[in-house]
Amino acid sequence: MEEKNEEIEKIQKLLKEKKLNELRKVINNLNSVDISVILEELSEEIDKENLLIAFRILTKEKAGEVFSYFSTEMQEKLIQNLTDTELKNVINELYMDDKVDLLEEMPSDVVERILKNVKSTDRETINELLKYPEDSAGSIMTTEFVDLKEDMTVEEALKRIKQIGLEKETIYYCYVLSRSRKLSGIIDLKRLVITEDTEIIKNIMETNVIKVTTLEDKEEVAKVFNKYNFLALPVVDKEDKLVGIVTIDDAMDVMQDEATEDLEKMAAMSPKEDSYFATSVFKHAKNRIVWLLILMLSATITGGIITKYEDAFAAIPILVSFIPMIMDTGGNCGSQSSTLIIRGLATDEIKIKDIFKVIWKEIRVAIIVGIILAFANAISVVLQHKSIMLATTLGITLILTVILSKLIGCCLPLLAKKLKLDPALMAAPLITTIVDTCSILIYFNIATLIML
Amino acid sequence: MEEKNEEIEKIQKLLKEKKLNELRKVINNLNSVDISVILEELSEEIDKENLLIAFRILTKEKAGEVFSYFSTEMQEKLIQNLTDTELKNVINELYMDDKVDLLEEMPSDVVERILKNVKSTDRETINELLKYPEDSAGSIMTTEFVDLKEDMTVEEALKRIKQIGLEKETIYYCYVLSRSRKLSGIIDLKRLVITEDTEIIKNIMETNVIKVTTLEDKEEVAKVFNKYNFLALPVVDKEDKLVGIVTIDDAMDVMQDEATEDLEKMAAMSPKEDSYFATSVFKHAKNRIVWLLILMLSATITGGIITKYEDAFAAIPILVSFIPMIMDTGGNCGSQSSTLIIRGLATDEIKIKDIFKVIWKEIRVAIIVGIILAFANAISVVLQHKSIMLATTLGITLILTVILSKLIGCCLPLLAKKLKLDPALMAAPLITTIVDTCSILIYFNIATLIML
Repeated sequence: MEEKNEEIEKIQKLLKEKKLNELRKVINNLNSVDISVILEELSEEIDKENLLIAFRILTKEKAGEVFSYFSTEMQEKLIQNLTDTELKNVINELYMDDKVDLLEEMPSDVVERILKNVKSTDRETINELLKYPEDSAGSIMTTEFVDLKEDMTVEEALKRIKQIGLEKETIYYCYVLSRSRKLSGIIDLKRLVITEDTEIIKNIMETNVIKVTTLEDKEEVAKVFNKYNFLALPVVDKEDKLVGIVTIDDAMDVMQDEATEDLEKMAAMSPKEDSYFATSVFKHAKNRIVWLLILMLSATITGGIITKYEDAFAAIPILVSFIPMIMDTGGNCGSQSSTLIIRGLATDEIKIKDIFKVIWKEIRVAIIVGIILAFANAISVVLQHKSIMLATTLGITLILTVILSKLIGCCLPLLAKKLKLDPALMAAPLITTIVDTCSILIYFNIATLIML
Repeated sequence: MEEKNEEIEKIQKLLKEKKLNELRKVINNLNSVDISVILEELSEEIDKENLLIAFRILTKEKAGEVFSYFSTEMQEKLIQNLTDTELKNVINELYMDDKVDLLEEMPSDVVERILKNVKSTDRETINELLKYPEDSAGSIMTTEFVDLKEDMTVEEALKRIKQIGLEKETIYYCYVLSRSRKLSGIIDLKRLVITEDTEIIKNIMETNVIKVTTLEDKEEVAKVFNKYNFLALPVVDKEDKLVGIVTIDDAMDVMQDEATEDLEKMAAMSPKEDSYFATSVFKHAKNRIVWLLILMLSATITGGIITKYEDAFAAIPILVSFIPMIMDTGGNCGSQSSTLIIRGLATDEIKIKDIFKVIWKEIRVAIIVGIILAFANAISVVLQHKSIMLATTLGITLILTVILSKLIGCCLPLLAKKLKLDPALMAAPLITTIVDTCSILIYFNIATLIML
């Protein structure tokens, strides 16, 4: 962190003193990711002119990379200040998937300007890519891959890679295509580099190709990366023709986004698309209010049930004071189980068919946990209130509540999955609300039975 | 999925009919990950002898890969049934990091057998690697990287890669070392392949090397991968000598594990190390009971506060029925905020110094959300109970509870981070328990003020 601050100050100073030759050397020696972070931070402190100077001083290659790492706001700001020639240079340095991402994020006037400056040969590809559904493999793939032919020798293949490799997003996997551009095999650069020059590609390529179709959900694509440890994955169309590849950096972004989305859903929010600070206060409120309203109104049902037992707590007012403890414990037990199941489903470790194995496991865990909690609570109640009846009531309630809430917690996510809903919807808050009603019912019924 | 089941049946049939030549062809054509999954599933249905046959039929290279993907139980079972020669072949096919992982997981008698069969030249390296602390970069790195010299030409470099590449975990990044084995630069294979043969490495290598030290936390290592989109990251010792590399597949495993651990902590559990089904019922109970006990006993504090207001709910029993609604809403609001902040901290988007920006944002969100909830609740209460006093009491309580719980929810994770504790500890369950007490206090004080 400190190093970066030093670099920011250094660059700011060089800019201020207009020492452009030194600045060029310093800034182009940095990693593109770092340059983008530094320029974003500087953009709050220096004026537009100086920011443009710093960006213009980058080598063509760096400029494209740095641009692709900028936030959407920064990209828009920059585009509006670049000349057409500069814009053309930057845009044409971007890989196809980054071009498409950019077009999807920008307002329409900027989109028009970008399209005007894109190479005419790319325009058709971009239009094709823009047509794929939002969360599909097609929407995150790039079209810059190395294609080889079956009858090439290793020497010919390496020569081809040398010619076209610079513009490809990855050259570490090469795709062997038939005459009709169907994918007949894959060969990695490691194999090419360590094999004799005269060997024929067909004999050494991997023919058991793992691939996805353009319409595959991008979350499934990320799972394939996770399972097989690939660096890139081929994407084919309905006719099995290779149309693009997804690279691991994009798959990692998908994983990261999905993890954040799942967490947000599990905390009763609609997933936000932007970062925390980039999301406006009203958008934040909007993302949170729907579930809060639903859960608040469902909680009044629990309240309605409590009023039915007015006689019980009028006779024994101390009963009321244990409502929070019963509710919280039930909620916590339920959310423990639902979290484990939701996560297990997300990582494909737990499948719908495992439901009985899961139930059997959770019941046994619940019995152990319930008995320990009941016992701990009994000690505290007997010491404080000197009532064995109360301790017994609470003990039985606790055991039954724990069992019930763990069952609800493990079954609802599996049920959601079965109904093709997102299991993350069945997370802690909803489970808590459902468990609340059940545990209050158990509590007052047992109290009425034992103590009245 | 269906495809895999077909393959399992096919392999089972071939094994049963002892058609080993065909089996050899079928099984060696599959991806190693798939073979490991298939053999694990088969191991429940076929006897040990047939399983060994299926494993022995794999090519040497596949056998090593498949073995590294097996679960710990399967690895142990297999080792106990392999001859010393077979074990030697399998072990020596593994990359160094996988050898070390294996040794860390196995019981001591198996460890002894493995060490006896490891190449003597590797034994020293293994002992060095075993010494690194559990969650350090050193513990997940491998020592099989390609090292080059500054004065080599591209042609010489490619020749060296051809000679030693097969045994390296990745050849896509090559590390340029000085005479004292200090890391002076990095060059990726893409650059080597597309550059003229006569170019000198020193002129084309990247000198701004991003690296970590052996003792760096593996979670930080994963963050570096995420930030820079690297495929491998060099690990240096205190004297800046290159001792190993971490590859992206291992970094992804770390990310996956951390995400699961965070979720478990956020649902009030101690993180489990094994998968859901591999963890025993007692282990599950143990992981869950500690927080349940702490939270249950803290909830009795809320209960204690309620008893102080016995007069209030004796006079107006309907007050009791809104306890669940107030508690749940406070808990949900708090967990929304804490989840956003915990996630923001985990992805480095939110920093401790942002605390005032966060508070200011959360207060504004809370006011909007609080007013909407108060209004929605007022309509429901007026319709049901025809009491404007009650609606006012609940409205004020809701607004104050939402503001307070959002403040607690955003401040506690930041405080935990400041105190160098894991922010995930400050997740929903703990926030809920703290918010409960506060909201009950707000509720009964306002009710006493307005309604008594």
